Amino acid sequence: MSKKDEPVRPEARLPKGLFDTQASELRACADMLAKIRVVFEAYGFEPLDTPAIEYTDALGKFLPDQDRPNEGVFSFKDDDDQWLSLRYDLTAPLARYVAENYQTLPKPFRRYQVGPVWRNEKPGPGRFRQFTQFDADTVGASSVAADAELCMLAADTLEALGVERGQYVVKVNSRKVLDGVMEAIGISDRNQKLSVMRSLDKLDKFEWSDVERLLGPGRRDESGDFTPGANLDPVQIKKVRALMDVWEAVRLRPSNAFQVEVLNKVIEEGPPESLISGLTELKTIDETVYSSGYGQDRIRVDLSVVRGLEYYTGPVFEAELTTPIKDERGIPIRLGSVVSGGRYDGLVERFTGEKVPATGVSIGVSRLLYGLKTLGKISAEATQGPVVVLVLDRDRMADYQNMAQRLREANIRAELYLGESGMKAQMKYADKRRSPCVVIQGGDEKGRGEVQIKDLVLGATLTSIKDRDDYLKKQAEAQFAVPEDKLVEAVRGVLARHKS
Amino acid sequence: MSKKDEPVRPEARLPKGLFDTQASELRACADMLAKIRVVFEAYGFEPLDTPAIEYTDALGKFLPDQDRPNEGVFSFKDDDDQWLSLRYDLTAPLARYVAENYQTLPKPFRRYQVGPVWRNEKPGPGRFRQFTQFDADTVGASSVAADAELCMLAADTLEALGVERGQYVVKVNSRKVLDGVMEAIGISDRNQKLSVMRSLDKLDKFEWSDVERLLGPGRRDESGDFTPGANLDPVQIKKVRALMDVWEAVRLRPSNAFQVEVLNKVIEEGPPESLISGLTELKTIDETVYSSGYGQDRIRVDLSVVRGLEYYTGPVFEAELTTPIKDERGIPIRLGSVVSGGRYDGLVERFTGEKVPATGVSIGVSRLLYGLKTLGKISAEATQGPVVVLVLDRDRMADYQNMAQRLREANIRAELYLGESGMKAQMKYADKRRSPCVVIQGGDEKGRGEVQIKDLVLGATLTSIKDRDDYLKKQAEAQFAVPEDKLVEAVRGVLARHKS
Repeated sequence: MSKKDEPVRPEARLPKGLFDTQASELRACADMLAKIRVVFEAYGFEPLDTPAIEYTDALGKFLPDQDRPNEGVFSFKDDDDQWLSLRYDLTAPLARYVAENYQTLPKPFRRYQVGPVWRNEKPGPGRFRQFTQFDADTVGASSVAADAELCMLAADTLEALGVERGQYVVKVNSRKVLDGVMEAIGISDRNQKLSVMRSLDKLDKFEWSDVERLLGPGRRDESGDFTPGANLDPVQIKKVRALMDVWEAVRLRPSNAFQVEVLNKVIEEGPPESLISGLTELKTIDETVYSSGYGQDRIRVDLSVVRGLEYYTGPVFEAELTTPIKDERGIPIRLGSVVSGGRYDGLVERFTGEKVPATGVSIGVSRLLYGLKTLGKISAEATQGPVVVLVLDRDRMADYQNMAQRLREANIRAELYLGESGMKAQMKYADKRRSPCVVIQGGDEKGRGEVQIKDLVLGATLTSIKDRDDYLKKQAEAQFAVPEDKLVEAVRGVLARHKS
Repeated sequence: MSKKDEPVRPEARLPKGLFDTQASELRACADMLAKIRVVFEAYGFEPLDTPAIEYTDALGKFLPDQDRPNEGVFSFKDDDDQWLSLRYDLTAPLARYVAENYQTLPKPFRRYQVGPVWRNEKPGPGRFRQFTQFDADTVGASSVAADAELCMLAADTLEALGVERGQYVVKVNSRKVLDGVMEAIGISDRNQKLSVMRSLDKLDKFEWSDVERLLGPGRRDESGDFTPGANLDPVQIKKVRALMDVWEAVRLRPSNAFQVEVLNKVIEEGPPESLISGLTELKTIDETVYSSGYGQDRIRVDLSVVRGLEYYTGPVFEAELTTPIKDERGIPIRLGSVVSGGRYDGLVERFTGEKVPATGVSIGVSRLLYGLKTLGKISAEATQGPVVVLVLDRDRMADYQNMAQRLREANIRAELYLGESGMKAQMKYADKRRSPCVVIQGGDEKGRGEVQIKDLVLGATLTSIKDRDDYLKKQAEAQFAVPEDKLVEAVRGVLARHKS
């Protein structure tokens, strides 16, 4: 084809917020997912897979009062003009699945699902337009035992990944308690609610005096920046503080657990129903996990857990790594929660009109992987590559392939060099592939019925050896000849040297 | 919320051509993919993952001379008005990746990738709009040793999945041979070429006399249906037949292998370059695989392999299961190829203008899974479910959860029943979950410090027992009490009875 006829060449690039994943990262991730799967299966969850594409209306992603999908999801029209979207989480497809198959499912229905989701949002540091979620949900169980169980599952999952006791904590709160607090202090305005939530969310980072300012007129930090407050009056703030003491009582389990009478004293006009109900839930969760051997070092009630204000309807929980984590430049970072979840009863209602209780947990796969790497729980290093059989005589490709095949038959990763380059480039290739050793057979070796084995790992250390005798000894170990029929044995010997 | 305020409820359904995958199918598929992965890794291939979304131009999926994407791909505009598409295979993203990272990649570059692809096509039986592919490609290797290796890889993969020698065959052909045949018989019209290809494709099903009719004026089958022919004249057909004899010589390896002199006799005016080159390639592939121990029962040259007329530029190959396969109704079906691939040199050229040789292989995951199931190589049965701890006293949820937890800590899948229903429904639930046994503790058992274990597998056989003594003995084995602290031991005993 002449240059003139060629079409304009596209640029090889990915759209923003989308990324390729290389071998070492993929292997680490697959390893992590396999371990998570074992824990989820141990709790009786069954795998489910749903397609990436769903009807936009089934995902509940039309803009309010409009025939246009929410801009946050990737959408396109089917050939019958109906709107389709890429799933933006694994919960909406679960809702569709449960509503569609309700009659035949075991109830409660426990399923886990792992897979990519897509968000048509502005990407940023740590924010992608495609990322992987790992979810477990129990549908059709109204008992808080189901929520308690997911907290245990979160703890077990982190420990299965090597995170030790003391390096993580699962924190539980209840949406009902938060609602009850708002009601008790007389707040109904949505923005003011959000403002109070945000202030309470700071409880695990700030002193009470600072949170008090955030609940009131606002707070100026050391740098002089001013954060506007929730504008509660002093009486309201006093009530919040009193409620927190009740909370503390809930935390001091099990003998000193929460008493409704205490609440009655704190709130003179009588505490709202939701507050009592929420605190009772937390008490039950607390007792359940305690009875199964989960101490406060692993799972604890914590007022600072706020999470999805509108979405959740009962207990909410999140797990975070408590060991300080640093970024690549050594600067400490707040990783945020690596597992999170809660109860939501609107799941199937959207389709059937009937409330179906459900509770679920979701793992942010990339964030958790990043956390595990910085904690040294997962090797970030690339794994050892295959043995490479070099090609010295291009007419003897079949012989070289046969050597590679003999190694593979002995369960050794091995490949024939398939490029066109000479010896030096082939050695460079083997280095790049992180090969433990190469197999060499030129005319001379062939004549003697031998192959040369070159140990690349040992070879790389030679330059640092000062002592002559030692050098010669190591050099002899790093490259040596064996009879052709001892190839597999000899390679096995080299691999055994560098077993990690 | 009152009924009036509720929005119209969406119907819970999936768009056509898209499907959910249940636990047993998912487990079987994951098992299969893991085995394939081991073989691909053994050959030195490294995993890569690319996102589902790519620029439409990078996928090469704009309609010719238009700014509109091909309708066969799902496409949508990004917020900067550029067209994005869901990948329709794993090869186009590989091309983009290689072009983007060419400088830093080891060359040749071996990668495998597994993941879903999307086709915006009319779905039909066995044709879906989302399906999984498992690909391996070697980029930057012009040697046919790379093609030969992929044939070996295909054979090894099938054997790793339990397909025995004689139950499958890998067939190799070359696009160059097909081109050469066309040139030798003087065909340049695209439609006539296609028609000849289709006729040759029938060689493994039809007698030569029938293929001859298809190459000529056409063929009427037993039912009276007429298939139009390729309209070759008798001289052209004679040449095709003569070329086929040369082919046969290639197949009778290794001593009687193809000789250019034979070709010269067949085609008086001298055979076209591509024909000689193609047959030489096939001879080399044949020698290579033979030297690595792959006989004609596993890999063989076969004229009937046609595959993607426009796409491939050299060797093409496909593996099929040769054991007769029947569908659910017992009717024999032609499954088609389960692994297929070939050489294509236009991969990176689209981006850089430079030809980069590449060869690859692709597994149709669903089709292969279906084939393996019908051959009995993969269990289609659902796996055993978790042990279910029943809830007889709702105030003792924490105790029951503790029992489930003790089982899990002993690596036994176990769950607490989380629904609201009574004993009978709980037993039904356990049946539906395929639980091997349930754990029961009511007030009486609690009083005696005992738990009841009910073996559901054994229990299901009781009704068929005629002999009274035998019945009573088995009944006693199927449900029995043990001290609380012997729970794990007792459940382990039941599981051991039904180990599959």
